[in-house]
Amino acid sequence: LPYSLRVPAKPRNPENNPGRPGELALIRRIRNRALSHSRTGITLGIGDDCALLKLRPGEEAAVTTDLSIAGRHFLLEVHPPEVVGYRTLARGLSDLAAMGARPVAAFVSLGLPRELTVPRGRQSAWVERFYDGLLALADACKTPLAGGDLAQSPVALADIVLVGAVPNGKALLRSGARLGHVIYLTGSLGGAAAGLGLLRGMRGLRIVGGFPAISKKMSDLASAHLHPQPRITQGLWLQRKSMATAAIDLSDGLSTDLNHLCQESGVAAEVDAASLPLHADATLEQALHGGEDYELLFTAAPTVRMPRHIGGVPVTRIGRIVRRRKGAALVTLQTDEGDAPLLPQGWQHFS
Amino acid sequence: LPYSLRVPAKPRNPENNPGRPGELALIRRIRNRALSHSRTGITLGIGDDCALLKLRPGEEAAVTTDLSIAGRHFLLEVHPPEVVGYRTLARGLSDLAAMGARPVAAFVSLGLPRELTVPRGRQSAWVERFYDGLLALADACKTPLAGGDLAQSPVALADIVLVGAVPNGKALLRSGARLGHVIYLTGSLGGAAAGLGLLRGMRGLRIVGGFPAISKKMSDLASAHLHPQPRITQGLWLQRKSMATAAIDLSDGLSTDLNHLCQESGVAAEVDAASLPLHADATLEQALHGGEDYELLFTAAPTVRMPRHIGGVPVTRIGRIVRRRKGAALVTLQTDEGDAPLLPQGWQHFS
Repeated sequence: LPYSLRVPAKPRNPENNPGRPGELALIRRIRNRALSHSRTGITLGIGDDCALLKLRPGEEAAVTTDLSIAGRHFLLEVHPPEVVGYRTLARGLSDLAAMGARPVAAFVSLGLPRELTVPRGRQSAWVERFYDGLLALADACKTPLAGGDLAQSPVALADIVLVGAVPNGKALLRSGARLGHVIYLTGSLGGAAAGLGLLRGMRGLRIVGGFPAISKKMSDLASAHLHPQPRITQGLWLQRKSMATAAIDLSDGLSTDLNHLCQESGVAAEVDAASLPLHADATLEQALHGGEDYELLFTAAPTVRMPRHIGGVPVTRIGRIVRRRKGAALVTLQTDEGDAPLLPQGWQHFS
Repeated sequence: LPYSLRVPAKPRNPENNPGRPGELALIRRIRNRALSHSRTGITLGIGDDCALLKLRPGEEAAVTTDLSIAGRHFLLEVHPPEVVGYRTLARGLSDLAAMGARPVAAFVSLGLPRELTVPRGRQSAWVERFYDGLLALADACKTPLAGGDLAQSPVALADIVLVGAVPNGKALLRSGARLGHVIYLTGSLGGAAAGLGLLRGMRGLRIVGGFPAISKKMSDLASAHLHPQPRITQGLWLQRKSMATAAIDLSDGLSTDLNHLCQESGVAAEVDAASLPLHADATLEQALHGGEDYELLFTAAPTVRMPRHIGGVPVTRIGRIVRRRKGAALVTLQTDEGDAPLLPQGWQHFS
């Protein structure tokens, strides 16, 4: 049985075995890299039983976890390791954005097959390049990596944990939408699904150093999928200005996430199809049901004067909150050809 | 490819499909169960983008993550689902104990093969029984389950996240041991390794409802392995009384964890073999290198009068902190036959 008794057959000490770096050596390298990045708010980082995080007086902690599994949330044969690392952190940051929280620290638990932890000739190991991508976004969003776990696993997976902070009682919840409120959206829809379609349509993906490599041109074309921008600035702005009554991030697709928001708020919604800000490459289908756009979907009172841009990102009015009716769909899509129920058709597990 | 575009081929709505519960239905059941348990400190639990946690003024947050993978940290063919759930939470709570932190909330990300999420005839699904075990310990330790994630995975795995709270600057660190300090240990050593040995030596493990079942007698005999007791009370007591200078929990085995503590403190240690509190069924080998005892290993100034018990658990003096010498082992085991280096031989990944 592969399960270790934690009493190995013979003594071993990875410290004295530099050719085959053990967990300690790998963790030490990750720690050194994490330490060289920003650390505001972290009293104690990687290397003890827990990390210690300090909030400001009057703040509460916002905590989210997101599990990504190879073959389901990312593809080792399509996504370069840096992209997997970047997207893993982006998922967690987007949840903080949806609460209007400022990021305090990230943690990542990695389960990896052994071959992804060792260098390939003179090329870096997959795991090192995963951290390159993750730490690049961590730096851009001033989010220190404060810890995590590392274990051998037959399938590659990453569980990301984000801890944020938000003034007491000021978090943007899914449950605050009320009759007559207006529905808004940051950025555009369907770009992530369209970008993934482009990537998967490519013949003969280039392989460099054993892993997929994406040309600069393709990287730009599929950027909405490869490098989504968590809307931290926009979420914080809405929270500080008390402009939004409810918010959710678009991880599962508009149809699914707007249904979630209505469910939690006890309301229904109408969406104007013509008003939807489609990504240049996206179909309506991708805009409605394609997930991973990581835009913010939020509501505001009708009296609020919403700006056209927040932090340089366009904000579009796409519909309104209406009364819930028994037997009717929670979300209705209004088009020139009439109204149609917009059922949740985005990402769902076990269904 | 199994990777979902998040744009499924045809509409589906698990809400209208009660015979095959979708993720939402499962999450709703878990949420209802979590809500029926204690919720102190949680402003907002499962169902939004993040959970919201409130600390007391003057406290900082202690955060830990631990990844458990089937075949490596637990065995589906040996451990009943309730035991996997219990042990998953115990690992995280033990890290909080080692910091002297009080538990605030737990999060668990589960990756599961589909067959573990569906009931077996009239028997509960594996995942429901996993939560039975986890929530039983959560109740006993007054630790609410505040969220998590659920994804389909070819291998069963659970990532546990614990958030605790500790007064500013009062956390027990690994790095505080100094020359002349005394080394103490709660409880006894090697019981978990001995218990696992018993379990694995059993012929024809009983299978009930598709999963392993353990007799009451075996459950008692192997309790140190099946139901380890996180030393939350003891860690809190040491922190509040400012009695300990450094602490770590024994997850990887005495040899490995004492080496960690010495490494972080920049010191060395001597252990009296004769003083070690062996579990009744354990060998010296299991006591030194067997992991998962989840006892607290801590140091105190020599002037401190340490009680013989803390919260009903025995405390044993097992050695002392000495000066680090170049080229010498960090930890020395002293026996009747002389001194021997005690190299880290416990659990390590990728080595």
